[in-house]
Amino acid sequence: MTYFEDIVLGVRREIGRHTFTAEEIKRFAGQFDPQPFHMDEEAAKRSHFGALCASGWHTAAWCMRFLVEDHDRHVAELKARGEPIAQWGPSPGFRDLQWLKPVYVGDTITYAAEPIEKRESKSRPQWGLLFSRNTGTNQKGELVYSFIGSAFIERRVKG
Amino acid sequence: MTYFEDIVLGVRREIGRHTFTAEEIKRFAGQFDPQPFHMDEEAAKRSHFGALCASGWHTAAWCMRFLVEDHDRHVAELKARGEPIAQWGPSPGFRDLQWLKPVYVGDTITYAAEPIEKRESKSRPQWGLLFSRNTGTNQKGELVYSFIGSAFIERRVKG
Repeated sequence: MTYFEDIVLGVRREIGRHTFTAEEIKRFAGQFDPQPFHMDEEAAKRSHFGALCASGWHTAAWCMRFLVEDHDRHVAELKARGEPIAQWGPSPGFRDLQWLKPVYVGDTITYAAEPIEKRESKSRPQWGLLFSRNTGTNQKGELVYSFIGSAFIERRVKG
Repeated sequence: MTYFEDIVLGVRREIGRHTFTAEEIKRFAGQFDPQPFHMDEEAAKRSHFGALCASGWHTAAWCMRFLVEDHDRHVAELKARGEPIAQWGPSPGFRDLQWLKPVYVGDTITYAAEPIEKRESKSRPQWGLLFSRNTGTNQKGELVYSFIGSAFIERRVKG
């Protein structure tokens, strides 16, 4: 990764897109969110969603996957250029997660990430805390998913 | 479910417990969070976690499963007693999700839910908005996971 000091705020980047199938929606829901409107087309029709749709945690899990892949791509690029690679630390959590619209069968969600805020860590001078707005948008351009993620990122200048 | 008006705040209930195996930690991570410390014991030893641990989204997914099972048990009890069943609406999202400690291989996480706040919905008078603190605690009694979930719940008295 880029060092904490070098991260530019306000630059949105696409990290991946995924089309949700009925089969995978039901498989994820069967394991982790077995509510009728995520499991069965007929029950979903009678629900407030009106049709089979993905668990919100399923939408979230794909975002995480694309965030990791984006990170790995970035590290590979730095390696290829022979540049130093800053460590990513653990995420202490996140805030403001919103499921804004259902993700229906056949919807293609484009995920994006945008660094929005940086804070130096007082307790851990070798790390900075980066906040990013991570989003999912469907093929109609509607925002379906959003959260503010956070991660510790190594500083170039230690303390 | 119990109607919005009948939900008692401040009562914590256990909703389920799960022991995380290396196999399932790697399987989930392979699909949704392919970072080395969730995928490989040796790489995890060299990471800031020190040992293989579950994706935070995996910890979160089990919580969702137990919330749904808890809801289903509750509905079954009401049915068995011939009592009316209030509808649960969609969740608009949640706030303050925290991964406080890693979940390592062999850890048993006990999940619990506690209703902490109720708000009448002005825009949807037939629904109330319930906030619950949902948590995961490991076998040492350490809090590892917490978030404030929200859900629309049907009101007994409409508007």
